[in-house]
Amino acid sequence: MSVEAILRTHPRPVAVDLAVLARCIDECGACEATCTVCADADLAEDDVSELRHCARLCLDCADACGATLRVVGRQTEPDPASQRATVEASLAACGASADECHRHAHHHEHCRLCEEQCRRCIRACEELLAALS
Amino acid sequence: MSVEAILRTHPRPVAVDLAVLARCIDECGACEATCTVCADADLAEDDVSELRHCARLCLDCADACGATLRVVGRQTEPDPASQRATVEASLAACGASADECHRHAHHHEHCRLCEEQCRRCIRACEELLAALS
Amino acid sequence: MSVEAILRTHPRPVAVDLAVLARCIDECGACEATCTVCADADLAEDDVSELRHCARLCLDCADACGATLRVVGRQTEPDPASQRATVEASLAACGASADECHRHAHHHEHCRLCEEQCRRCIRACEELLAALS
Amino acid sequence: MSVEAILRTHPRPVAVDLAVLARCIDECGACEATCTVCADADLAEDDVSELRHCARLCLDCADACGATLRVVGRQTEPDPASQRATVEASLAACGASADECHRHAHHHEHCRLCEEQCRRCIRACEELLAALS
Repeated sequence: MSVEAILRTHPRPVAVDLAVLARCIDECGACEATCTVCADADLAEDDVSELRHCARLCLDCADACGATLRVVGRQTEPDPASQRATVEASLAACGASADECHRHAHHHEHCRLCEEQCRRCIRACEELLAALS
Repeated sequence: MSVEAILRTHPRPVAVDLAVLARCIDECGACEATCTVCADADLAEDDVSELRHCARLCLDCADACGATLRVVGRQTEPDPASQRATVEASLAACGASADECHRHAHHHEHCRLCEEQCRRCIRACEELLAALS
Repeated sequence: MSVEAILRTHPRPVAVDLAVLARCIDECGACEATCTVCADADLAEDDVSELRHCARLCLDCADACGATLRVVGRQTEPDPASQRATVEASLAACGASADECHRHAHHHEHCRLCEEQCRRCIRACEELLAALS
Repeated sequence: MSVEAILRTHPRPVAVDLAVLARCIDECGACEATCTVCADADLAEDDVSELRHCARLCLDCADACGATLRVVGRQTEPDPASQRATVEASLAACGASADECHRHAHHHEHCRLCEEQCRRCIRACEELLAALS
């Protein structure tokens, strides 16, 4: 079962390519969960004092992506400017989180996996943003 | 890439079966997205006045599941009572949403798919709740 | 302007005492913000390694209270079991957060203020829970 | 007790005027609650089919403001681009919600109150955005 399947049943025609939209929702959901786990893992590490920036940015990213998946998931009479602004907020948060996770990726596997997830979400958000323009 | 993969890299030993925990996080994430779409589709239907209860319960379910995936996703020194209470809140919300979607499943395909997703989330939450006890 | 004012304009009669309901929504909102700040302040402290449990519980509390303020804020055909379960999840999260903040309240002022806010939210949730029963 | 009081106790110096920051957090919290109630009241109205756009935009606004209050509430090593992008997402969502609520303000009191709240949040977000630049 996928988000794409339920989007296909929506009574309003979806304005953008459904696969692009569904991918953005899926990746934002994956980012919300992954960044929540990475921030929590940072907190548990011995070198937590080196990971404050990482934890903080991952928390931001979880919040931004959680909001975005909901706002872009709604197809009933959307406001184009709000749709774009929420995707842009997720892009900024994912970018900051990916770059900081990258700095810790070689000694913390959760940071390596979280960077990967954030970069996947960035690609999905960029595709949706292009489709919304 | 899966939530299970990043949970495996957490510095603290996870207290419960990792596959059970990951499934609950994944299903809560799927429920958050699916219920958001179903509530929005309800709003767009010609018979929206028959779907008020459904829309409302789906919004509740998205909120409850969004909170649960975060709270159970954290492994650093969890509070057992809070972990259980958040899973129970999702169970209640998913149950209400599934039952109401069931009433509309034969004429609204999004309700049929949403009921399915809520029931899958209920099974995953029940498994985690058993593991937490 | 208050949440109580807009609740008074809702087309459906509110099943519980409006002042009790509005207080719960207000305190959950204050808890969401206060616990977010306290968790972040924990992360910035020199003794962050002593504050992992506090940060984690405050993040849980922000998530639980954010979900509760939305679920109880909706008056259209609510599901009583879901309403109670979400308030109980906030009660559990606020209790855990208040108790842990209390342990740090004498050397971290943000923990002292956060404990106070969590205890205020507990009282408001208990009042609403009694009214819902 | 106010958000400003706990922000004052944060171990890191806050980069912007504390009163401006606290006002943005407070107004975003009020918007999250108010827009949740307005969307739910829309759903309960006899003319719900005229209020689909309003309900949808209020739900977006609640999601955007809930994310913003958390992201700007964190003071530990923030990412300036993410801070600005989340405030801009709330500005867009509040603007769309205020304009649509305005259209219904003369026959639905909850829309009138919600428009007022959204406009207050817009002012607070604009002040913070100016301070962040």
